[in-house]
Amino acid sequence: MLAVHLENGLVTTRHLPVPQRPEGYALLRLLLAGICNTDLELQRGYYGFAGIPGHEFVAEVVDADRRDLIGRRVAGEINLACTRCEWCARGLGRHCPNRTVLGIVNQPGAFQEFFVLPERNLHLLPGDLPLERAVFLEPLAAACEILDQVPIPAGERVAVLGDGKLGLLIAQVLQLHGCRVHQYGRHPEKLRIAAAAGVVSESAAGPLPAAAYDFVIDATGSPEGLRQAAAMTRPRGTLILKSTVHGTVAIDTAPIIVNEITLVGSRCGRFEVALPLLPDPRLRLEDMVAARFPLRAAPAAFARAAERGTLKVLLDA
Amino acid sequence: MLAVHLENGLVTTRHLPVPQRPEGYALLRLLLAGICNTDLELQRGYYGFAGIPGHEFVAEVVDADRRDLIGRRVAGEINLACTRCEWCARGLGRHCPNRTVLGIVNQPGAFQEFFVLPERNLHLLPGDLPLERAVFLEPLAAACEILDQVPIPAGERVAVLGDGKLGLLIAQVLQLHGCRVHQYGRHPEKLRIAAAAGVVSESAAGPLPAAAYDFVIDATGSPEGLRQAAAMTRPRGTLILKSTVHGTVAIDTAPIIVNEITLVGSRCGRFEVALPLLPDPRLRLEDMVAARFPLRAAPAAFARAAERGTLKVLLDA
Repeated sequence: MLAVHLENGLVTTRHLPVPQRPEGYALLRLLLAGICNTDLELQRGYYGFAGIPGHEFVAEVVDADRRDLIGRRVAGEINLACTRCEWCARGLGRHCPNRTVLGIVNQPGAFQEFFVLPERNLHLLPGDLPLERAVFLEPLAAACEILDQVPIPAGERVAVLGDGKLGLLIAQVLQLHGCRVHQYGRHPEKLRIAAAAGVVSESAAGPLPAAAYDFVIDATGSPEGLRQAAAMTRPRGTLILKSTVHGTVAIDTAPIIVNEITLVGSRCGRFEVALPLLPDPRLRLEDMVAARFPLRAAPAAFARAAERGTLKVLLDA
Repeated sequence: MLAVHLENGLVTTRHLPVPQRPEGYALLRLLLAGICNTDLELQRGYYGFAGIPGHEFVAEVVDADRRDLIGRRVAGEINLACTRCEWCARGLGRHCPNRTVLGIVNQPGAFQEFFVLPERNLHLLPGDLPLERAVFLEPLAAACEILDQVPIPAGERVAVLGDGKLGLLIAQVLQLHGCRVHQYGRHPEKLRIAAAAGVVSESAAGPLPAAAYDFVIDATGSPEGLRQAAAMTRPRGTLILKSTVHGTVAIDTAPIIVNEITLVGSRCGRFEVALPLLPDPRLRLEDMVAARFPLRAAPAAFARAAERGTLKVLLDA
């Protein structure tokens, strides 16, 4: 079978045997996968990654202990938790210290024709849900994670900085939640996608309003964006860090302390929260697809995804 | 009358006329004042300060509209709020955008024989409270502010990093609140002060425990301390920034995002919360006094306070 391999910044494809299915695991056949910014960061050398990447996917169950799963379309939680530690007991397997992470940490990923994942990680998808929408479940869950951590009241004015993939999902999810979202970005054609859901588009090119929002989400992925987001947050307000910036960022802590701002780091989220949102037509997920490549063209797909300003690039099995 | 003047890093004393008392203000005679790290930062040039510093004080009311105040001992909130904005309406005059701040922003401070402050800012002190304890009300309120922002449950294990003045007050206040406080510092003789209140002393010299506390308070005032505090915070934990570091700090945001840590900036607090704690003998406030100088020796007092490792330096009127 065909598998994508990532090592030393190089994306290649290889022919490998179909993986063995351990007990409690399902053998999955890839249907459609998405390239995430994290995949691009793995390519840039973060985590010293070498192996098969990929964690946004829709697949069909080929084999499983639970026979009722076979033949069903599924998405899957990417954290493989130990189920025995206190984090797992609290329902926070996403923070299990013993976890592996699909396509990121010590677990071969979804960019291959067949792969395995624990059955408990799987979520059944409605049969009539288009694959192009279903493949957004993982990043949509990451957007929903914000509301899991910070109970932003419906009706609240919220600023989202950044109009990349995650910024667009966040803006749409918060707008659906009932917030009045202002999305700041530099790409009118991207901002239009969330505007269709009722999000107010704002240009990030000019001077941004100071101390103007009680809730600000930084999804710029840039140190400068984080600095701007802090300046836009009102005293005692909450700034949610929803970025994939790596390395150290120079932050002026003085305004954070003087204005008693709360910064909340936010990562991936629960699929069961995001799943009911997936069919909602106000989420313009299809509009976020920039390109589709076959799995064998993964090197070109990665190159395209890494082009500045590209939205979601998909990989067809 | 004698007044301390601070300009271009230079502390001098001057003879000035006794200030006029505007309507609604009290004329105060200084009894005892404390030098705060913020005063030392003003001396180092932050805020471009030039004028009379001082915001930790005990004073006697000499004249006031409210005649019942005259002759009473008072401490005073340092933020002079406008009383008319939405922040003031929410009881958060400490964040009023129109505020001046005693001895810090556009309001002559307490390091002078006589000064004025709005009567609504004053808090009456019990007559039998020693001046040396009462002068700690402002920094004690700053320590209490943590519990105003973050409801840390009693019984919770809490790490306090730093054994300076504020770190010691924070450790003692949280211990009195019922937390099991571990204070990390490099000065056994300072750690002993909080240990008398039941705080567990820990050396900050060796390797510190990773991801070990749900609540961590950084009171080190150093970028390295902040980095260590983040590393000591458990996933989904809360890290409270209680420092007076100025300038930009290089922070690695990746662990904050991956571990979904909440950072809370925390500044000064409500006096009415701290006032009932002041007489509690478990607070070893007198042990925190390093030296007392007369107001006329303010230059020497500032020099002493700026010596590495010095605890509270007081100024006698």
